[in-house]
Amino acid sequence: MSRIEPRTLKGFRDYLPETMIPRERLMETARRVYRSYGFSPIDTPALEYLEILSGKGSDETDKQLYHFRDHGDRAVGMRFDLTVPLARFTAQYQQQLAFPFKRYHIAPVWRGENTQAGRYREFVQCDFDTIGTLSMAADIETALVIDDLFRAIGIEAFTIRINNRRVLNGVLERHGLAEKSTAVLRAIDKLGKIGPAGVATELANTADCTAAQADTVLQLAQLEGDNDAVLMKLETIVSGNATGESGVAQLREVLAGVAAAGVPAGRLKLDVSIARGLDYYTGTIYETFLDSLPGIGSVCSGGRYDNLAEMFTSQHLPGIGASLGLDRLLAALEKLELLPKISTPAPVFIPYFDAQRLGDYLRLAKRVRAAGYGAEVYPDPKKLGQQLKYADKRGFTVALVAGEQEFAAGTVQVKDLRSGSAQTVTLQPGNELETVLQTLLEPRTA
Amino acid sequence: MSRIEPRTLKGFRDYLPETMIPRERLMETARRVYRSYGFSPIDTPALEYLEILSGKGSDETDKQLYHFRDHGDRAVGMRFDLTVPLARFTAQYQQQLAFPFKRYHIAPVWRGENTQAGRYREFVQCDFDTIGTLSMAADIETALVIDDLFRAIGIEAFTIRINNRRVLNGVLERHGLAEKSTAVLRAIDKLGKIGPAGVATELANTADCTAAQADTVLQLAQLEGDNDAVLMKLETIVSGNATGESGVAQLREVLAGVAAAGVPAGRLKLDVSIARGLDYYTGTIYETFLDSLPGIGSVCSGGRYDNLAEMFTSQHLPGIGASLGLDRLLAALEKLELLPKISTPAPVFIPYFDAQRLGDYLRLAKRVRAAGYGAEVYPDPKKLGQQLKYADKRGFTVALVAGEQEFAAGTVQVKDLRSGSAQTVTLQPGNELETVLQTLLEPRTA
Repeated sequence: MSRIEPRTLKGFRDYLPETMIPRERLMETARRVYRSYGFSPIDTPALEYLEILSGKGSDETDKQLYHFRDHGDRAVGMRFDLTVPLARFTAQYQQQLAFPFKRYHIAPVWRGENTQAGRYREFVQCDFDTIGTLSMAADIETALVIDDLFRAIGIEAFTIRINNRRVLNGVLERHGLAEKSTAVLRAIDKLGKIGPAGVATELANTADCTAAQADTVLQLAQLEGDNDAVLMKLETIVSGNATGESGVAQLREVLAGVAAAGVPAGRLKLDVSIARGLDYYTGTIYETFLDSLPGIGSVCSGGRYDNLAEMFTSQHLPGIGASLGLDRLLAALEKLELLPKISTPAPVFIPYFDAQRLGDYLRLAKRVRAAGYGAEVYPDPKKLGQQLKYADKRGFTVALVAGEQEFAAGTVQVKDLRSGSAQTVTLQPGNELETVLQTLLEPRTA
Repeated sequence: MSRIEPRTLKGFRDYLPETMIPRERLMETARRVYRSYGFSPIDTPALEYLEILSGKGSDETDKQLYHFRDHGDRAVGMRFDLTVPLARFTAQYQQQLAFPFKRYHIAPVWRGENTQAGRYREFVQCDFDTIGTLSMAADIETALVIDDLFRAIGIEAFTIRINNRRVLNGVLERHGLAEKSTAVLRAIDKLGKIGPAGVATELANTADCTAAQADTVLQLAQLEGDNDAVLMKLETIVSGNATGESGVAQLREVLAGVAAAGVPAGRLKLDVSIARGLDYYTGTIYETFLDSLPGIGSVCSGGRYDNLAEMFTSQHLPGIGASLGLDRLLAALEKLELLPKISTPAPVFIPYFDAQRLGDYLRLAKRVRAAGYGAEVYPDPKKLGQQLKYADKRGFTVALVAGEQEFAAGTVQVKDLRSGSAQTVTLQPGNELETVLQTLLEPRTA
């Protein structure tokens, strides 16, 4: 038989248990937090009519689109993000949906990216959005969700950086740069990477800025100080420009609202240099950085937009949303050694020791599961040493060993696989086994 | 602006909140049950090299494959099931994986099916498999997982039908039909749909059976009685044929093992007519039917195979697995009115009543979430009636209403949105609010 070499396409990845277990946990945490704020899950097809997808992102996403003709000779494409499908979805079902429409969507997207930059061609997005309200309450809530999400993941040291596009736009209007805002925003976004001199050069080259204009933009982007101090400086800068003034007022309202909701001071940091290159943001902008690993970039970003679905409907749909950067966060957690190394989601291992006793092992496993802990029974009555070697490779926490002697006595040996220590526990009525497991295992980890 | 009509491709579906919420719950239940037996999650790319996918299913799946040339001019295809990717995966990482390798995989697959039969071109598979053991303990465990899964979903009236390919193959061998087994198995699979006369015709036409051969096959497929009676009849039928005898012995072992593990008698039903058309099954076969809706077909099916990955590796990899039919089960639950109609995963609604009190509402929501219940704050301080209309459309269970008067008194009105009754509850220290919510809501539904 001629065999086929088992391999994956360039830019695509398999997830083995040890990477998929924490990945799945993160997604479940995100779902739980999103749901707790009343966001509902939706799903949309991986494939869409090409006309739905093309021309909706940037020139770059158009180039990266996976597209082809299907069995019915339709031009189709694989979604490159979850925002365009959301726009199409919201337009299509606007009569059925209740607004404000709060949805989350956790699903893979595909981009034929250049893989040299460590980018992947398939990745999961974890988006949540509130559509159909102009109220700053939604902007405030977006920050609360991000705050809850990272704390639920087990991270305490992180900073949510906030800005408002209107402040930037107001300054650009005032200095005759309104038409060049895209190029200016892209340049500002690089401040952290290429420094003020680099941004000045880029402003001159790509946005045709004069030296004075570049100077104004840079001064704005480099404003520093605590939130109140920056707000006061911004107020002076935008004074008399309606766009800029409304932006500062919105920033004040969001910062005050987040504080009133009980988020500790310092969690939100006003940062005028955050622009987010995407054209469609129009108000509040968020980026989230891990304090111990800011260099990895934002791990949760988003912002407010004026009109989600103008390509698909005349209905005006403003909203705000953000997206958890799952892969980047997982890479960060690994670097910070915050990812536990386990390749089994069930902590309890039950060797199949006495070949005649399979039923007893299966019932023992059932009892462990009823107590809330996952349990795996080895399927072959091999030598105990061989089975324990497997348990070690898989990373179980506890083994329940029972042979003829234990069965005769109605007991089981509970072996802590981390320390190697063991104790004999009765299986007779009472909860001795459950109590011992509770002391050895995280509660309800199944 | 010329607008694009928002629409989905034929054969593809959007999932709105009211369908996605129960769908996501089912998937989470499946994950929890799979994990509790030590199955680990994995994921693989949606796109594979075309040579990995083509020729691995049936002629039909080849025809249905979505395939195209990617940006690098590689011939690629979208996976049509999770078994071929599992075979490729297991072959590729065999040095890293611990065997038995127990994995689950819940992910979408794509087939350019004829949509007339109510079939979809994108659907989610929920597979679990145990690879690398010949022990019947794995076959027994597969039935235990199915049993736990349906009970965890909240279904008690279901039957797992079991058969063993070796029994069928033994009979076919004995009657000179071994070479025609695929055609014979496909015909038997239709017994429920087209009846004995139809199967006899098909056996004659597609499998070239003589009348006597067709009669033998039909007699076998129509064996009836309780498990012990059928086992005894089978023993007589296969007596002297090694393949058939080993099949009956395996059936005995699995039925006894499942009973010993505490599964109630009657849950497993030996059914010799279950053949499952797929060529690659070689031993135990399972199908699962809802007792009140058997006509919808099997909602969880699978079986044992001799060699998972022979196209990709010389390593011999026997195993057994099964797959939950998510969409079929959801359709059944809807028909049986077992699906709750809710379009919000958060049961508690907090109207934004007093425009000056947003911070108070946000802190109240935080307190409700800390008690384990999802809570949604309406983002705009509109008229209360309008907000409660929204709450009604979304399907919240409880509203917490507070205006100037309540804030002054340190109370909140707890409104049961199902009955319309309301009570005033203090927000002062103590757990009065939490206690009242507990009586009104399912515990920990967030």
